[in-house]
Amino acid sequence: MRKLLRDDITYEIGVDIGGTKVLIAIADDDGNIVFKEKVKTSPDVRKIIQVIDDCIQRMNIQPHTINGIGIGVPGMVNSKDGIVIDAPSLKWGNLKLKEIFSEHYRVPIAIKNDVNLAILGERYFGGNKSNNIFYIAIGTGVGSAIIANGQIIEGTNYLAGEIGYFLGKEDVVPGRINHSLEFGTFERKTSGTALTLKGKRLGYSSPELFLQYRNNNPEVGPLIYEFTLQLSIAIANVVSLLNPELVVIGGGVAESLDCIIDQIRAYVAKFTPVTTRIELSKLGGEAGALGGIACFLDYQNLKLEA
Amino acid sequence: MRKLLRDDITYEIGVDIGGTKVLIAIADDDGNIVFKEKVKTSPDVRKIIQVIDDCIQRMNIQPHTINGIGIGVPGMVNSKDGIVIDAPSLKWGNLKLKEIFSEHYRVPIAIKNDVNLAILGERYFGGNKSNNIFYIAIGTGVGSAIIANGQIIEGTNYLAGEIGYFLGKEDVVPGRINHSLEFGTFERKTSGTALTLKGKRLGYSSPELFLQYRNNNPEVGPLIYEFTLQLSIAIANVVSLLNPELVVIGGGVAESLDCIIDQIRAYVAKFTPVTTRIELSKLGGEAGALGGIACFLDYQNLKLEA
Repeated sequence: MRKLLRDDITYEIGVDIGGTKVLIAIADDDGNIVFKEKVKTSPDVRKIIQVIDDCIQRMNIQPHTINGIGIGVPGMVNSKDGIVIDAPSLKWGNLKLKEIFSEHYRVPIAIKNDVNLAILGERYFGGNKSNNIFYIAIGTGVGSAIIANGQIIEGTNYLAGEIGYFLGKEDVVPGRINHSLEFGTFERKTSGTALTLKGKRLGYSSPELFLQYRNNNPEVGPLIYEFTLQLSIAIANVVSLLNPELVVIGGGVAESLDCIIDQIRAYVAKFTPVTTRIELSKLGGEAGALGGIACFLDYQNLKLEA
Repeated sequence: MRKLLRDDITYEIGVDIGGTKVLIAIADDDGNIVFKEKVKTSPDVRKIIQVIDDCIQRMNIQPHTINGIGIGVPGMVNSKDGIVIDAPSLKWGNLKLKEIFSEHYRVPIAIKNDVNLAILGERYFGGNKSNNIFYIAIGTGVGSAIIANGQIIEGTNYLAGEIGYFLGKEDVVPGRINHSLEFGTFERKTSGTALTLKGKRLGYSSPELFLQYRNNNPEVGPLIYEFTLQLSIAIANVVSLLNPELVVIGGGVAESLDCIIDQIRAYVAKFTPVTTRIELSKLGGEAGALGGIACFLDYQNLKLEA
């Protein structure tokens, strides 16, 4: 997507770094997205910078017109200092990413966990300008992010939002509790990976499971019921705890969930008297990159430290 | 408790309003508690003010030396405007408490939910000066409060912390889910009221249950196991979500929990890889009134709006 650019305006760049691909989005100060592209890359930071440089050049954007670059990383990120503490899928550990980007670009750089970046995208571009949002991302894994009092809640060690480790009493049997750091109990029930595994036994992919459910295939009923129930219990508990104005369900799996979103809403309303609004993400996989842009457009509202 | 007062110092007053009693504490600017008293009263605001006036006079404190009065109310409180939205045990609804107190005292007044006030007390007087604390109060009911990013998280309708409504999959059977607004599913498992009810069948009060457990009475084992497990699951889920530096367990029941606190710590460490510190409150039932004082001593650190 390209638009004609004017010389007197400035730009914000959002970069969502994944295991094998990088999504780059560029907006003008009015929040109009003027560029968006997904590029295959490697975890080599130099190569990622090269890809971003290439996009900037193709858009004919002068370096001095860039207001800031917001970058999302799938892992544990010290957003204050811009250090990636641990990002297993990229094999990054204790990487001073902000420093590397700052040396190259000499513009404000914000580095955040990708789900924390996505909630900023949902807030600014998803039409959800609330100061109290809970965002749950269901993709390969399950993650979440919290905006409360208009701020991202990152926790004392930048680990807040690890909803994948939620568990219930039924999980307290040997071997079923979060025994590895890689996969949590809740994640093993509700992630895309979990759905793929469970669907395989019935011969369906994860999106096909929901398609079959929509078509009233009784074979997938129990599986979808269990998924819906577990997700609703987790959301209800978060709603009781945080009283968010809005819950946004995002991530790749969310694109299949319009057939059960009303059931989720009904369950949550039954499970907690604390009311909320529950929506499926309209931004899908682009929330992160758009959040990188939002870092610099939504700066004042969000009291960001970047 | 009384100390000699000096004329050149100023005072903070904390008031924790309960259904039948009011706890009043007064501190000087160094945080020394110079007065503390629990007084029987009625939900009549005029009478509560009279009781506070009486304490101030007995301490010979001049009105102009009062820096502020922090007041805790058991219910839903709009702390920004100082309005008690709903406090069932006091039969208060939509009561402009701050306005009433401000007219009488003409000093800064802070009105908060009692559990939110208690977490401030724990933070300032409990030796827990963290910016990321989760506080769970187990008394007649079960409530909780959150400090994240150094701020109290109150939620979009001042309902955050309603952990009493937590539920698990085992609760999703007809009639067992939060069917009334008064008692939540988790609360019916872990509150003092729940323990009293369950203990009655065995002929023990709630504190006696823990005493019997300490004495290895096998009769109470399953009940205490269930209590410990449910509490640990709830705490572990909150720790995964919020990554608090510290979890404080307070309220009346907490005074009996030193015999299971190590088990709770062990469970939580097993249930989530997100680490935290779990402590029993040292302040007991005084946390709320002390929090009222902390409102004005801890003002800058906590970025309070009062």
